[in-house]
Amino acid sequence: MDWVIVMGYIAGACTTSAFLPQAIKIVRTKHTKDLSLSMYSILTTGVALWSVYGLINHDWPLVLANLVTLVLAGWIFILKVRYG
Amino acid sequence: MDWVIVMGYIAGACTTSAFLPQAIKIVRTKHTKDLSLSMYSILTTGVALWSVYGLINHDWPLVLANLVTLVLAGWIFILKVRYG
Repeated sequence: MDWVIVMGYIAGACTTSAFLPQAIKIVRTKHTKDLSLSMYSILTTGVALWSVYGLINHDWPLVLANLVTLVLAGWIFILKVRYG
Repeated sequence: MDWVIVMGYIAGACTTSAFLPQAIKIVRTKHTKDLSLSMYSILTTGVALWSVYGLINHDWPLVLANLVTLVLAGWIFILKVRYG
């Protein structure tokens, strides 16, 4: 496999999985005061739109990456609303 | 312009600009305790890799979107390191 393709997969893995440590941190501390509600509102909307865009274009890697991010960013959004 | 293309641009605008309210919130409060350092380390690495990937593939919309996110996520990362 081309190293550029490999780099693309690593990039995708990073930008998708990055939200997991934030979610775990919130579950542990139950503190979200320093997190921006606007950020997670806009981000969740954006990744939901990317998922629909990918579905319409049958772009499955885009759909997969954005659905994973949607679950994680949506989870952080819900935790932020819950803990304030 | 096709409405699917328009949706893609709106999705890109959301996932790129989402980090701005978080950066502004930190500048105002100087508090980053609830933010995950791991998240911003992985995310900054990921968007840097996406930028290089886009540059190699001459994919300018991908480069533009990721360079903007790199500036914002990198800024939040620096603020997190600074304020702890």
